[in-house]
Amino acid sequence: MSDFPIGLLGHGTVGAAFETLLDERADHVAGLTGRRPRVVGVLTRSRGDFEQILGDAELVIELIGGIEPAREYVLRALGAGRSVVTANKQLLSQHGEELFEVARANAVQLRFEASVAGVVPVIRVLSESLAAAHVERIHGIVNGTTNFILTEMARGLSYAEALAEAQRLGYAEADPSEDVDGKDAAAKMAILARLAFGTPVRLDDVAYARELGLGLKLVGTAERRDGGLSVRVHPAFLYAGHPLASVSGPFNAVTVEAPAITEITMSGPGAGGLQTASAVLGDVISVMFPPATPPPAREALPIITDVASAFYLHMEVADQPGVLGLIAAELGAQGASIKSVVQRGLGEHARLTMVIHPLLESRLFAALQRISELEPLRSPPRAIRVIEEEFV
Amino acid sequence: MSDFPIGLLGHGTVGAAFETLLDERADHVAGLTGRRPRVVGVLTRSRGDFEQILGDAELVIELIGGIEPAREYVLRALGAGRSVVTANKQLLSQHGEELFEVARANAVQLRFEASVAGVVPVIRVLSESLAAAHVERIHGIVNGTTNFILTEMARGLSYAEALAEAQRLGYAEADPSEDVDGKDAAAKMAILARLAFGTPVRLDDVAYARELGLGLKLVGTAERRDGGLSVRVHPAFLYAGHPLASVSGPFNAVTVEAPAITEITMSGPGAGGLQTASAVLGDVISVMFPPATPPPAREALPIITDVASAFYLHMEVADQPGVLGLIAAELGAQGASIKSVVQRGLGEHARLTMVIHPLLESRLFAALQRISELEPLRSPPRAIRVIEEEFV
Repeated sequence: MSDFPIGLLGHGTVGAAFETLLDERADHVAGLTGRRPRVVGVLTRSRGDFEQILGDAELVIELIGGIEPAREYVLRALGAGRSVVTANKQLLSQHGEELFEVARANAVQLRFEASVAGVVPVIRVLSESLAAAHVERIHGIVNGTTNFILTEMARGLSYAEALAEAQRLGYAEADPSEDVDGKDAAAKMAILARLAFGTPVRLDDVAYARELGLGLKLVGTAERRDGGLSVRVHPAFLYAGHPLASVSGPFNAVTVEAPAITEITMSGPGAGGLQTASAVLGDVISVMFPPATPPPAREALPIITDVASAFYLHMEVADQPGVLGLIAAELGAQGASIKSVVQRGLGEHARLTMVIHPLLESRLFAALQRISELEPLRSPPRAIRVIEEEFV
Repeated sequence: MSDFPIGLLGHGTVGAAFETLLDERADHVAGLTGRRPRVVGVLTRSRGDFEQILGDAELVIELIGGIEPAREYVLRALGAGRSVVTANKQLLSQHGEELFEVARANAVQLRFEASVAGVVPVIRVLSESLAAAHVERIHGIVNGTTNFILTEMARGLSYAEALAEAQRLGYAEADPSEDVDGKDAAAKMAILARLAFGTPVRLDDVAYARELGLGLKLVGTAERRDGGLSVRVHPAFLYAGHPLASVSGPFNAVTVEAPAITEITMSGPGAGGLQTASAVLGDVISVMFPPATPPPAREALPIITDVASAFYLHMEVADQPGVLGLIAAELGAQGASIKSVVQRGLGEHARLTMVIHPLLESRLFAALQRISELEPLRSPPRAIRVIEEEFV
């Protein structure tokens, strides 16, 4: 199997995470695309040679950030017939048209999923799934730092306390000014507006609030208005029913509205080295092999039918001493651990509701079978699965 | 400019919506791809000829539904070297591997975004953006009919009332059994699990609850468990913080969890002829021209900087008669319409908060400038934009 040679420009948090992720997933990518991706050169301030990388690589990944020298390297790579993947929002929001033109002229790909909302696939969805949609409006929470700070402030912290907490958790830079003055979000909205409305939008075209204000969310908006386009970033209150209202902490989210789609919303982590590296890797695979039909099934995982789940239980019982003990004993015999119980008297009957910790479903149903045969039961017990927030 | 000839199999709700949408957007698609998509043949029970369509079309769109004759037509089209776009979840969940293999063998595309969650781009995101992700778990609300019914039941309606309302609004079929017994959601989870875990999953592999139960949401789950794969559909309670908990009414949503991405959630309308047609059209464009670099800017919308917004206003004023009248007069002079006002006494001061209906920002700021100069004002007024639920 042949290699797919990749040149990596920049080796900070995202660059290092990308190399680690690529090591882990190279076999998998080789299975999908028929070629094994391999980093053949790394350029940092202190090591590497751009000319050599350009000679060796089919794809150049730009993770330097900022305008120069990133712009020059990207232009030269595209000009030399290399595809480019970048996460550089400032470069795209200020020099996007120039880069797009050179990429088209050289018939190579320029992909930039990681530049907006991290791993949330908003670039691909706007460029491909919604390529034919007449987009009317985009709202986005595209800066996780400010969203985290505003979420904490809504819980009672001062701005200084919330910022310190964001810095402690790695969500905010030591110098948070690009995030909190809205410039970061403005660059991202310029990129989204360009894709959604086909209109060149530069960072300077975006009206943005230079202070946090009191708003619950820092919302970016790009929308058609009176035959024109308005792109702006402001702190704003969102009504409770709005799909962005429930996006908390460092998450990002984007809502796209168009007549034929009504609206779709995508959300997920907006930052983090590994998450951003994952978005970069998705672009790399697309350059290697645009998939259209699923590849052959690659794993034959056995199908599991008996799984552990948390459950909510609901029982009507005679209101007499010892009932709870009888039921708890049957649950305990199957290994069930009770998380919470509420018993409410209803005259001669009582209603017992409880939540139990995850347990194999076969065991839970065995316990319920026994419980349904207990004398004090007034109706068969009902069980409903409970899905908790489970992060990997 | 050359035509891109399309054959359309089936002309029900989605087929008719697709033809209308294509008429509207054909110029736009031609600008993106360099070819003008055109329907060159339609096959229904009463009209059209499959052989002729196969001869004339480069792409066949299958919107018949069900297994036969859809399966035979799709196999023959793929075998004849035509790409196929389909929205047929039953066909894919029962014969997916066979279709994928024929598509690969003939080096043509088989796309099916519309088969799961309507216009929510979950197929593309799983197949492309997350092609390299080691997905651990997918939770999905993938049946809008049951989600609507359960949302209404949570508001106090009986099952029969909620079903009747769903039928009245067109969210439920006259015979709702495939939706409410979970079979529809099971087929969709089988498709998602196949893409996310690379494991062949047939409809029969999916454990699904055959009754609505009391749960707030009908949740589909596909996850790695103990080296295997569990795929199931059950009514379940979701904790308030779960990203699916706020998905109400006929919307669909899917959450994907993997170590490198944490989790991403996508939501939007799961059904509706026009929305499904829009997902089909996105696939059609991908077949015509997989875009990688944005096409040239296609519109030059003027950038609008003064837009109308709703505002929340906050003012500290002297607690004396007539203050509200003074402020309301200044707002009224700029055309502001007050939606709600709350005044709260704080000893000598009062806090005045109000929400005003959308107004050009230049006019609002002019009013605030005048208000800040009023004698009873104790501090400058603060204004925060309010984003309401605005559906196109």
